[in-house]
Amino acid sequence: MAVDPDALAKAFVEHYYSTFDTNRNNLLNLYEEGSMLSFEGEKIQGSHNIVAKLTSLPFQHCHHTISTVDSQPSAVNAGMLVFVSGNLQLAGEHHALKFSQMFHLMPTPQGSYYVLNDIFRLNYA
Amino acid sequence: MAVDPDALAKAFVEHYYSTFDTNRNNLLNLYEEGSMLSFEGEKIQGSHNIVAKLTSLPFQHCHHTISTVDSQPSAVNAGMLVFVSGNLQLAGEHHALKFSQMFHLMPTPQGSYYVLNDIFRLNYA
Repeated sequence: MAVDPDALAKAFVEHYYSTFDTNRNNLLNLYEEGSMLSFEGEKIQGSHNIVAKLTSLPFQHCHHTISTVDSQPSAVNAGMLVFVSGNLQLAGEHHALKFSQMFHLMPTPQGSYYVLNDIFRLNYA
Repeated sequence: MAVDPDALAKAFVEHYYSTFDTNRNNLLNLYEEGSMLSFEGEKIQGSHNIVAKLTSLPFQHCHHTISTVDSQPSAVNAGMLVFVSGNLQLAGEHHALKFSQMFHLMPTPQGSYYVLNDIFRLNYA
């Protein structure tokens, strides 16, 4: 049965942000040692370093709301590019922050995906 | 001599948007038949279809101003991921539009790059 790549991208995005919003430590399973994160221009490599960065962000509670999800095959080794825009609400803050983020997903031998590339930017007004 | 990938990404971005803002038809050289564009959720494939879309956008003159450029190796066939945020000023419009865009660049046999994946979104306030 062919998998609809857009549905797969949407399922990944929902899983990623619900994990982020409930327990950021569990994001460790989604990265590998070769994974790269660019977070507001800061470059971080490797799953443990990436999760250390994400768990050290200066807020305890947050909630992501997704506005758009675009996906394309990356045409290499069954990889998939996922592009997200949305809002990030931090606990205690009045206004939500707008963000854009892209993921390059690569298949695992187990039939799942991991995040090879991750680039995150807030969209300042 | 090693090429600095960030400098290369920045040079590509400057070339892409200056071409876009002066003569969109010349973007044809940056895409190939396997190239994919997602433009505000609309999927278009192939260099000629992509440039037909970009030249049919309902404005004659525009100017892109770049806010941020992030790049990462895509770790496949020397590809490179480029993530851009910026402002798009249309002629006759009072306010600039904010946008985010990602490119997946692949090397050509001639030592240059072409756009394999292109995803564009306006960031509505």
